[in-house]
Amino acid sequence: MTLTVAQLSESELLARIFPRLHAGTTTLLGPGDDAAIIAAPDARTVISIDTQVQDKDFRLAWPNGTASTGFDVGWKAAAQNLSDINAMGASATAMVVSLTLPGTTPVGWVEDFADGLSAAIVALGAPQCSVAGGDLSGGSEIVVTVAVTGSLEGRDPVLRSGAKVGDQVAVCGNMGFAAAGWALYESSILPSGHTGAMADAATLFARPVPPLAAGPAAAMAGATAMMDISDGLLRDSQRLAAASGVCLDLDSAVLAAQARKLEETAVVLGENPLHWVLTGGEDHSLLSTFPDGYSLPDGFVRIGSVVSMGAPEAAVTVDGQNFEGAASGALGWDHFAV
Amino acid sequence: MTLTVAQLSESELLARIFPRLHAGTTTLLGPGDDAAIIAAPDARTVISIDTQVQDKDFRLAWPNGTASTGFDVGWKAAAQNLSDINAMGASATAMVVSLTLPGTTPVGWVEDFADGLSAAIVALGAPQCSVAGGDLSGGSEIVVTVAVTGSLEGRDPVLRSGAKVGDQVAVCGNMGFAAAGWALYESSILPSGHTGAMADAATLFARPVPPLAAGPAAAMAGATAMMDISDGLLRDSQRLAAASGVCLDLDSAVLAAQARKLEETAVVLGENPLHWVLTGGEDHSLLSTFPDGYSLPDGFVRIGSVVSMGAPEAAVTVDGQNFEGAASGALGWDHFAV
Repeated sequence: MTLTVAQLSESELLARIFPRLHAGTTTLLGPGDDAAIIAAPDARTVISIDTQVQDKDFRLAWPNGTASTGFDVGWKAAAQNLSDINAMGASATAMVVSLTLPGTTPVGWVEDFADGLSAAIVALGAPQCSVAGGDLSGGSEIVVTVAVTGSLEGRDPVLRSGAKVGDQVAVCGNMGFAAAGWALYESSILPSGHTGAMADAATLFARPVPPLAAGPAAAMAGATAMMDISDGLLRDSQRLAAASGVCLDLDSAVLAAQARKLEETAVVLGENPLHWVLTGGEDHSLLSTFPDGYSLPDGFVRIGSVVSMGAPEAAVTVDGQNFEGAASGALGWDHFAV
Repeated sequence: MTLTVAQLSESELLARIFPRLHAGTTTLLGPGDDAAIIAAPDARTVISIDTQVQDKDFRLAWPNGTASTGFDVGWKAAAQNLSDINAMGASATAMVVSLTLPGTTPVGWVEDFADGLSAAIVALGAPQCSVAGGDLSGGSEIVVTVAVTGSLEGRDPVLRSGAKVGDQVAVCGNMGFAAAGWALYESSILPSGHTGAMADAATLFARPVPPLAAGPAAAMAGATAMMDISDGLLRDSQRLAAASGVCLDLDSAVLAAQARKLEETAVVLGENPLHWVLTGGEDHSLLSTFPDGYSLPDGFVRIGSVVSMGAPEAAVTVDGQNFEGAASGALGWDHFAV
């Protein structure tokens, strides 16, 4: 018999979770009181919140026969929240976690969740970040919400609105891997039978690896605008362009080179890898702009330039061609065929 | 036809929500970027998180024929989170909000939610607090999670662990009203047909009124320990007593006087009002301890004294009698019959 959360009291369940939660260095008061207290050394706190819902953001039974483990869901909860702090040029300080759980949820799944959350915090490079508190509720499906705080360490935040005409456009991190991994999970193909980029894609979908050192590094290197690519390069480029009142012109050769990394997986699944690069979300890479002539920090690849908005107003172009509406997926990608 | 959230894009829904969100004075960067930035003037941020789940914490169809409105759920989301900050002796600075919504949710319900959240922030006395950001997800039931931050304004936090033998035990706020209101909603009785305490109970269950000025006031008045009564006076007294390593001895005469306020409602529903006072949660009143001889701040009523733990170890006694296990509801309340 699998022990389920319905068989434990709330305090018994918390007693199993608490020892597994990572304690960083920024917590002045941890779990156990009405609220936690986090250090905010420069008198500002960056804050964001992100939710994963069962059967929307993860599945306990994927078409390919695998299941999202508690560890995977905990890892992704940490990764996507840490990425939001990274995208401001900040370092994470703490998380508070709300878990809504059906009574049938195995206690082991919840313990794995706590382990995955804590493991990601350390492995992704945010060991200072504490899991400072949380809330448990019952519900008919699993819902995981994390709110995360961060410190700008005295720096200005890097907003979406600061891109200037003439800036370089650059990305740090994977492009399209999580989308390829998602397509694998939604197929009949078990990722365990594969190696290389195909295995990487599956792993990076289940356990994203946002480049957490890159956000503060970009801020210090003079980034003018920055955001986390969570909804796909095109859609998020459009958001950054709109916030800045400019157009981002992307370089098809760079995009094609990214797509080639996913070619094997695309062939197996009968998909276009460039579509993954352009529209795939959840890689949690950083999209940044830097003044022309500035050296890009380690890990950033130049993917285009900031140009002025033309007429008709296009937020994103590729090699100077209008790309409006591309994020909807309505346009074909044939003119970028690799 | 009722417009539902499934009929709008995420950005269209956000465009309807954003203008309704209260903007306080503590936000350095509001919604729209990867994260928000909140002022933390004394270099510390108090943080808590709380979730409400449809059909657990609220119902879209109560047995008495009413429905939890979006306004009610938004109000309660604000109230219970603001109360956690209050219980530390702090003032709220910001909220981030995650909404998980079935596609069938009326857009009007979500707009009402935003209105209720914002109205509560102002009406409860936290107009400085901003709604700084959020997240929208799809799901099969409504789940509302709010994370709230606060400022201690240079003061020490008031923890659960500071009660000392000889201290006065005091409460600020209603006791048992929300439980009585919940019993009304779960009955066949429409609260709209009633006035006085019965109407108050229904209103206070739907829209709790935590005493937000009282937390900082208690801190400044020398409170040694404090917490928010969210799970009932007995259970929360036991928690405070356990955290402090003491016993709270409550005064039956004071408890009976509180119960008398709910007598009419109790008669109608065939319930014992003292049970509501002792075990009813969600009033979000403050349970505090103050050194003997200290003047209690406005609104606080003395309900007992801190005594040393006896043998067998009891965390809560009433008139010196052992009350262990009372919070489970297993004990009858006849010896306190009003």
